[in-house]
Parts: sequence; C-alpha cells; structure tokens
Amino acid sequence: MNGIFISLEGPDGAGKTTVLKNILPTLEEGNRNIITTREPGGSRIAEEIREIILAPENTAIDGKTELLLYIAARRQHLNEKVKPALAQGDIVLVDRFIDSSVAYQGYGRGIDVESVDWLNNFATDGLKPDLTLYLDVDTETGLKRVMTGANREINRLDLEKEEMHQKVRQGYLKIAAENPDRFVTIDASKSIDEVTQAAIDVIKERFPDNFTK
Amino acid sequence: MNGIFISLEGPDGAGKTTVLKNILPTLEEGNRNIITTREPGGSRIAEEIREIILAPENTAIDGKTELLLYIAARRQHLNEKVKPALAQGDIVLVDRFIDSSVAYQGYGRGIDVESVDWLNNFATDGLKPDLTLYLDVDTETGLKRVMTGANREINRLDLEKEEMHQKVRQGYLKIAAENPDRFVTIDASKSIDEVTQAAIDVIKERFPDNFTK
Repeated sequence: MNGIFISLEGPDGAGKTTVLKNILPTLEEGNRNIITTREPGGSRIAEEIREIILAPENTAIDGKTELLLYIAARRQHLNEKVKPALAQGDIVLVDRFIDSSVAYQGYGRGIDVESVDWLNNFATDGLKPDLTLYLDVDTETGLKRVMTGANREINRLDLEKEEMHQKVRQGYLKIAAENPDRFVTIDASKSIDEVTQAAIDVIKERFPDNFTK
Repeated sequence: MNGIFISLEGPDGAGKTTVLKNILPTLEEGNRNIITTREPGGSRIAEEIREIILAPENTAIDGKTELLLYIAARRQHLNEKVKPALAQGDIVLVDRFIDSSVAYQGYGRGIDVESVDWLNNFATDGLKPDLTLYLDVDTETGLKRVMTGANREINRLDLEKEEMHQKVRQGYLKIAAENPDRFVTIDASKSIDEVTQAAIDVIKERFPDNFTK
C-alpha cells in the first residue's frame, strides 16, 4: 500500500501554513493516517540545519551555501520522515518541498535552474509529490500579510527586498505551467475560508478512494 | 597578485594536522602571509555546519545528507576565507578540501564519484588547489595512530569500520593517479619529522619565488 504525497507551495504570505492546518479535520475523516510536516526541518537533524539557514545573524551566508543546506535538510527529512510514512500508506502533507528551491534559489536568487533541478533529484532520488497545491498570491498582498501577521516571527528571508519576491512568484507560475499534471493553482488572494475549501475540493477530487469508507 | 592554494589530504591518522603545524615556521620565512584553515569549518557558519556533521549523536544522518553538508561548508569557507586570502596574495593551507569528499563520500561510502565531482564543482566554481600534498598511510598504521592519539578526540567518523578506511585509501590513490600535476604523494608511514621535511621540500621546489627575498 502506497501513501499519498501532497506538497503546499507558494510565496510568503500565501497562507500555506494556515490552510494546511485548516484542511486537516476534513482529511482526518478519510481512511488514511495523516502526517503534516514542513521544510526546511521536520526531523531533528533537519531542524538543526534549518536553524543555520534562518538565523537572522547569518547574513554572510552565500546563495549557493543556502541552497545546499536546503537540499541537505530535504534529503534528511525525506529519509527520516516522509518515505517511512508513505511506505505505510499515510497521507503526507508537506509545507514546502522541491519547488520552493527552484522558485526561491533558482528564479529568486538567480542560481541556474538546471543546477537546482539536479540537486533536487540528487536529494530525492526522483521522488515527486502526487499533488502540489500552489497558493498563488500577488507580491503586495503576500508581503502585507507577512508583515502584519500576528503569530508569525519575521525571519531573515522575509526581509529580502520586494524584487526578490516578484521573481519568486514569476518562478512559481512558470513551474506550475511546466507541471500541469502535478500542480493545481489556487487563488490565495481570496479569504482563508475560500482557499481552504478550494484545497479540500481538489484533494477530494484527486483522491476519492480516500474518502469512501 | 595571486595567492598560493595548498591542500593537505590523507586518510585519518596520516598526520595532516601535525604536519601542517610543523611546516609553518619554514613557510613563514617566505615572502607571503600564511593562512591555515580546515575543512569542514574555517568560518563561523561553516563551523556550525561542521558541528552537525561530526556530532556523535547524529548517527541517523544519511550519506547524501552528510555529503551535501560538507559541500555547503566548503562553499561558505571558500567564499568567506579562502578566496579573499588568495586575492590578497596569501598562501592558504587547508586541512582537507575537494578530494576528501571524493575519497570519503565517493569511494568510501559509495556515492557515485561523478555526482561528488559535480557537487565539488558547484561549490568551488571550478577552483582547485595549486598543490595537493597527499599523506599516504596504510589503514592499519593510520587507525592505530587515531586510536592512540593523545590530544585527539574520537569522533563519529573514526568509529566507522576498517573496511571504509581501506576504501578511502584506495580512493585517494586513484585520485592521485588521475591528477599527477596537482598531487604529490608523501609516504606518511615514516616519522613525523621525515614527513614534515618531505612536505617542506615539495613546497620549496614548487614555489621557489616565495623563498627568495
């Protein structure tokens, strides 16, 4: 029995983390055990790597170093947490995965996308999500949400300039266009309730077997 | 003015760290400023990565994760410390560099060598040492030195089995054969004084301009 692997992607402020939390009660009515996790992090060693990446004092971190650390955390998280859960038939919901590296470090920071793809493939041995929910939001709306979010600490990456966020969103739109079978784009400028409902509808449509007792 | 970049390589117990310390007084008689450094580590962020790699409790670390962390630490160390020193004409002596990844993670752990080479090239943008001093020692002698070393803590990697160390040495011999212009092999089963003198002789012969006032 194989599990179901779903990633949530989107620019900062798209609402991924909230939507992930909000769709859980519906998913839990289904037949499978649910694992929610996040990148970077999701296992002890991967969380240690996350701390280095996101520490506000680590401004001297090079773009390629940052990418390599994300990829290392991905590999460890996948092996320790995602793959064992999929092997036992669970639904794994991950907050950011391979496409974040392509959007942020590739399109955002200008590292060539072919290299980012190579690194993703090296880390995952080719494993891709069954479904990627891409929460699309324009840069202004996204950044405004980040800056005014009540229960959210501002980290080093949030402080990058708006131009970078523009490039990231354009990158996501390109990746979505190139992966029409895997990507479903949801308009995340709408209310969180509407976005949550849209995400639930897509998952129910894609994996109907999970919801029939 | 360009600097001189020298790496020291060899299996554990070859005596790299001691030799590096012992050759310094002679090098300091030359015309250039000397920077000694080590991998993994050598800058604050790279040392943080080193801690994750070498922590004895991190036994769950995957082979590819370990390699990616070494490569990330290499990139950061190179950018923060090695390249600026070379740009101002210094001699940079580094204790382990690209060849350690090929020998340990490639030949030792069985990650394909082409991938390790790709990662090294990604991290270094193609920069290679001007000279690599390879301290060659048989596995038994090397491991005996590691285990009885008075001023040396045993870390996680030392505890890997002897078979791994055999593969690492065979890997080094192969890399040395493939890079005859860059590699000079020194018999490190001899006394530390003899090995030190051999290293000094090679450096003086390769870079005579440094020692003429």
